Amino acid sequence: MAEEVMLIGAKGSPFTRRVETALKMKGVQYEFMEEDVSNKSPLLLKYNPVHKKIPVLLHNGKPICESLVIIEYIDETWKGTPILPEDPYERAKARFWAKFMDDKCLQPLWKSCSSQGEEQEKAKEEACELLKILDNELKDKKFFGGDTIGLADIAANFISHWFLIIQEVTGVEVSTKDKYPKLYEWIDEFVNCSIIKENLHPKEELVAVFRGRLQAATATK
Amino acid sequence: MAEEVMLIGAKGSPFTRRVETALKMKGVQYEFMEEDVSNKSPLLLKYNPVHKKIPVLLHNGKPICESLVIIEYIDETWKGTPILPEDPYERAKARFWAKFMDDKCLQPLWKSCSSQGEEQEKAKEEACELLKILDNELKDKKFFGGDTIGLADIAANFISHWFLIIQEVTGVEVSTKDKYPKLYEWIDEFVNCSIIKENLHPKEELVAVFRGRLQAATATK
Repeated sequence: MAEEVMLIGAKGSPFTRRVETALKMKGVQYEFMEEDVSNKSPLLLKYNPVHKKIPVLLHNGKPICESLVIIEYIDETWKGTPILPEDPYERAKARFWAKFMDDKCLQPLWKSCSSQGEEQEKAKEEACELLKILDNELKDKKFFGGDTIGLADIAANFISHWFLIIQEVTGVEVSTKDKYPKLYEWIDEFVNCSIIKENLHPKEELVAVFRGRLQAATATK
Repeated sequence: MAEEVMLIGAKGSPFTRRVETALKMKGVQYEFMEEDVSNKSPLLLKYNPVHKKIPVLLHNGKPICESLVIIEYIDETWKGTPILPEDPYERAKARFWAKFMDDKCLQPLWKSCSSQGEEQEKAKEEACELLKILDNELKDKKFFGGDTIGLADIAANFISHWFLIIQEVTGVEVSTKDKYPKLYEWIDEFVNCSIIKENLHPKEELVAVFRGRLQAATATK
């Protein structure tokens, strides 16, 4: 039976891009279904009834949800470039940092640019502390995964691309090369990996997406 | 070299108990270091400088943090009863539900009992929806892991023990056997597994802990 791999996602979403990166690292061919997140499709609701969120990977009709869970599934299912290392302690570290990106960094980084007044000041302070932690983690390494990109690098993709663009769109300066030199070295290495570089989302499209989101956030205040 | 396994935790914490359950499933001997979470030890701050939280597993001096990450490490490091299944799709499902417990259930379940007024009503409503999802997931299964307990069951330990006690202490009724029959069957099966039963935290101690936390929450309002 021919293998069927389908990805329900949105090209502008860092979570979708994480999964695409993992599929491309494994050389897996897949069909991409662009989801309109403002008008969710019956397909998405059927395959991710719990969260109703992208991305969803369908492998021979079986759905897998949550980007980090999907990446581990891909790593365990297909040969090719490994995404997690073999050693259990190194695997634990990769999972720890990937979880850190989602649980700790995402919200404060977004808020540091999108909120206002006191809330923004607090988010900026928090974001700076988090970026310092990441900068420090990278002090002796090229990637979070060591010499090659791994789970934590893929999970940090929103820092290397999306977060820089949000800062540009909003004019808010949170991260700079001077403050986080190792993190900026990592950004440079990461976005220049061929697999990442060839699949970066066009900046002008993301600029449009963020302008829309920021306007929506302001309108609901 | 003799193996050194040390767990920094608090006996009353469901997260610590998760790790203890995993260690016991593998038959790993370990030293337990009770942490005073209101006055964190230099040891905790040294080994979990990022989150400064329990539990931390020290294996031959190397720290592993975050309970779900620790459980996967334990599963990959020691033989004995498997915690995650072998099949990648089943592993993905276990990880999905374990993550669901932490990301979605913990806060609303706690708030449904500990908050007041409108906030409480909203949390209760949300908690009921989440419990319904869990009840439905268990419809054809004995455990979240299938026939035997696995990662998601261990992650759901706060529902089987802590959440029932919180409801008793506060007098708030969120979950009942009538509303969630499959979930209550699961609770019964889970707490009666020998490894869980022999290590349940004494109810009277948890009652005292929750009374303290609820008073503290009220005092800061």
